[in-house]
This record gives sequence, C-alpha cells and structure tokens, in this order.
Amino acid sequence: MAKVTARTAVLRLDGGSAVGARDSLAAEEPLEIRVGGRQVAVTMRTPGDDFDLVAGFLLSEGAVRGREELARMRYCTDNRHGEDGHEHDPYNIVEVDLAPGVADPTWSLNRTTFTSSSCGICGKSSIDAVHANACWSVAEDPVRVTPDVLYSLPDRLRERQKLFDSTGGLHAAGLFDAAGTLLCIREDVGRHNAVDKTVGWALREGLLPLRGMLLAVSGRASFELVQKAAAAGIPVLAAVSAPSSLAVELAESSGLTLAGFVRGRRANVYSRPDRVAAPGVSGQ
Amino acid sequence: MAKVTARTAVLRLDGGSAVGARDSLAAEEPLEIRVGGRQVAVTMRTPGDDFDLVAGFLLSEGAVRGREELARMRYCTDNRHGEDGHEHDPYNIVEVDLAPGVADPTWSLNRTTFTSSSCGICGKSSIDAVHANACWSVAEDPVRVTPDVLYSLPDRLRERQKLFDSTGGLHAAGLFDAAGTLLCIREDVGRHNAVDKTVGWALREGLLPLRGMLLAVSGRASFELVQKAAAAGIPVLAAVSAPSSLAVELAESSGLTLAGFVRGRRANVYSRPDRVAAPGVSGQ
Repeated sequence: MAKVTARTAVLRLDGGSAVGARDSLAAEEPLEIRVGGRQVAVTMRTPGDDFDLVAGFLLSEGAVRGREELARMRYCTDNRHGEDGHEHDPYNIVEVDLAPGVADPTWSLNRTTFTSSSCGICGKSSIDAVHANACWSVAEDPVRVTPDVLYSLPDRLRERQKLFDSTGGLHAAGLFDAAGTLLCIREDVGRHNAVDKTVGWALREGLLPLRGMLLAVSGRASFELVQKAAAAGIPVLAAVSAPSSLAVELAESSGLTLAGFVRGRRANVYSRPDRVAAPGVSGQ
Repeated sequence: MAKVTARTAVLRLDGGSAVGARDSLAAEEPLEIRVGGRQVAVTMRTPGDDFDLVAGFLLSEGAVRGREELARMRYCTDNRHGEDGHEHDPYNIVEVDLAPGVADPTWSLNRTTFTSSSCGICGKSSIDAVHANACWSVAEDPVRVTPDVLYSLPDRLRERQKLFDSTGGLHAAGLFDAAGTLLCIREDVGRHNAVDKTVGWALREGLLPLRGMLLAVSGRASFELVQKAAAAGIPVLAAVSAPSSLAVELAESSGLTLAGFVRGRRANVYSRPDRVAAPGVSGQ
C-alpha cells in the first residue's frame, strides 16, 4: 500500500555550509476514482483514508447524499500490471458501486462545467450551481459558537496533526462539535482532499447532514471549501488564513458562518456572525 | 472588468470584544477557457493577467509550445446576457484560436487522464506522462545558483507582492535570472494559477524555453508545479514550504533542481544540488 510519508536524501544549506541529510516528505500519489466501472476523476492525494476521500468527493460533486447510496468501495487489485508491463500500485484506484436506483454520475474528471452554452460565466452562476445541487440548507441551523471555542480550533487541529510535524507539507481539516470536541481529523497535501476525507468519514459513519458542527481547515478558505462544507450540511467553517471573495459570497448566500484568520485570540467573521457574536460577546 | 480585490464587511473578534469593520479579500472568479470555439477548462482564479494565465495553462497542458502557436486570444464580449437573463461578466471567458497547423486539444477540463484503461495508475505513470509530453529537457541546463541568491528569492518575491499585504490571501510566483533579478511576478488565489500566469507571460514574450532561469513560489511545491516549471524549460524551482514526494521524484527524473523550505539563510535542496552547491559552498 502506498505510504503516507516518504524519506528522501536532501542537501541542507545553512548560510555558507551544506550537509547531506535525510528528510521526510508528504507522499503524493494519483488516485483514480471509478463509479460503475467508469473513470470519473483522477486526483493527486496523500495516500490514506482513500475510501473517506472518495465518499467525500462524491458527496461534494452531488453524486451521493448518504452512506445508503454507496453500495461498495474497493481497491482495484485484480490487475497489478499495466499496459506498459511494469507493476502498478493497485491501491491507487478505488472502484465504487452505487446502490440500486442511484444514478451513476454522467460527468467525469473535475466537474467544473457548471455553465452550459451561455456566454458569461461568473461568480453568481457558480453560486447558483451550488445552490441548485444542495441537498440540505444550513441557513436555519441554530448552532451558537463562543469566540473561545472558535479561537481554540486551530490549536486543537494542530495538536492532533500527526504528519505535519514530520513533513511540514500537509493540510488538515477537522470536524468539531459546538463545544470544540474533535470528532475527526484528516490530512492531505491538498486542502480540498483533507476536507473531502473529513466529510467522507462522516458520510460513511451515517452522520450527514452535519447539523450543529464546525469544520476547521489549515490555510485559506476558497469557494470550493465552502461548497464542500455546505454539501455536508456544516453550518460553520473556520480557516486559519484568508478567505476569497467568492468564498464569502457563497457562505453569505448559503447562510453559512465563515470565519477566517483564526489565530491566537482573534478571528474575522465574514458571514452570519450571529452564530458567534451572540450571546456572550461584549463590545458590539 | 472583474476586480482583483473585493471589500467586504467583517465582524472582527479580539478576545472578548467584537467590532464591525471592512476587510479586503482576494477576488476569486471562474474563468472559462475556450480553444477553437470549444470549452476546454473552467478554473477558479483571481482576475487579472488572464491571457498570461491561459497561455501558461495551455503550455502546461501541452497544447502550445510558444507564442507562434497562439494566433489570437480575446475576451468573449459578444453576449453579455446568459440564458438565465441576468448580465454576466464577459471578462470571465477567454477564447483562443491556435495558429494554422496547430491541432486543437482533444481533451477538456483538467487533463488528469494520463492513464488510459490499464488498472494501476501510479506515481511512475504520472511521471512518464510528463516526460512523454515534454518539449524541452532541463537536465543539461548548466546554470549555477549561489546559496545567497537562493536565500534571497522569497524576500524579493514578497517585496513585490502587491496584493498579499492587503488581502493575506494570494500566492505568488516569480521568474528570476540566475543573479536573482526579477523578470516577472504574478499573484493568484491558486498557486498553480500564479505559476501559469508567470510562465504564460514568458511564453507571450517569446522567451521560451526559460533556460538558466529560476522560478520561486510561495507555499508548497506539488507535482503539478514541478510539471509546469519543466514544461517551460525552467531548471530551478524554489519553494518557501515543503515539497511532496512526487514533486521530488519528478524533479529528480527531469533533472530539475528543486529547493524547499527556503527561509532566512536556509534551504533544502531535494534534487540536482550540483547547481547550487558547487562552486562556492563550503562544509561538504
């Protein structure tokens, strides 16, 4: 099975000196996702929690809504030699069978074709496409989060991030309840994969929609991450770094609370601040 | 035209206080790329330098090798209203015509289908696919880089990064010569887009292959970034953060010098250290 980290030789430069050393790297390998025997995506990812990744990816893309729609997932281990004759890694292909009555997706690869023929793709059309595919609404979720819980999320994420310290190269996503208790953490070289693994874990546990839950991510919050949180029914997304403009627009129109720059005892809340600010925050 | 930054209302939490404020965000908008009238990709990007982005994307994907293969690029401004009747942004679609005799790409969207039917996608097949598409080899590039120049790249990048300070949300890629002189810097919410914009600029200036040049990127170095550097003929890639395992493997097999964790007066060189280490580095 593919490894999560890899060791490599490195020349370590320090001022005017250079010494040979060994270094740990975050592993990156392609993963092919097949549904009903057909390739629907190839993504680069850090091996590990692959079934969670696939489940989360299929949720984010609107192909499944819960574990009852996933009949079977397995690695493709029946042919270890590719057409070029050299031995391939059978753990880089996951084959999915959907439950009877669930339609196989008609798209393939990264499903970014949210426009059809009209000339004029724009942020609004991207947001409309997300809403059109939404299974659940997070706007009415009554959860409240205290600022102290919000502030605590990055540290809790980092404490449990097993691989980062050895490689410095992995993003993390963590699912928390409103009291700040960690339910699941997943890591990957790609931030979107870390989120897919986390919500995919919840899907496979039968926990969707994730009402009252918080998702915390290392790094920035893009449109795609807000989309994934909303697709899992998560009402609060907290990022250590900056959000993008379209991430904020999507969060606003979805009724999702988006916090960014959550560092130390500070945070910026870009949408639906009522879930964080009231009650218990003074100074408004 | 779409804006590079956007202003938004924010609730700023600081310990127990909360105050309303305004914040600048990095803009994120979809961009549709059409070649010969057909949609080949939709990517989320920060508006600005769109023609550079498209040129670099098409280079990275093996569709073009130089500016002579690009006949025309233009925004799709002939229909400002989409099928849903609301006004769309005409600056989110770029239409490309390739030069006579240059075949339009047959793929579409993100071209991650480097495997065909064989069961067993793996890192080696990903690397083989990159080599099969390569226009130029960087392995024989005789460029030498002093450690001092290498150490200086992140600061030089940051000094010229216009948007980061206002938004905290943008990645940067910069093209330098071996003396550390900056030729071009581009920013984007996506690191891969920042690199596409930078090499796309060089392509449109007729500078390819970029022999003897250095590419510096904020953040991490993935497989994809090494692929893009190699596709532009760049022999040295320097990243502020960690590389992935497959990034190192591709750099090694391409003969590209990959440096990571370039911070202060330290750096790790993961492949082809001969370009950095000799001459002038003591302590080996």
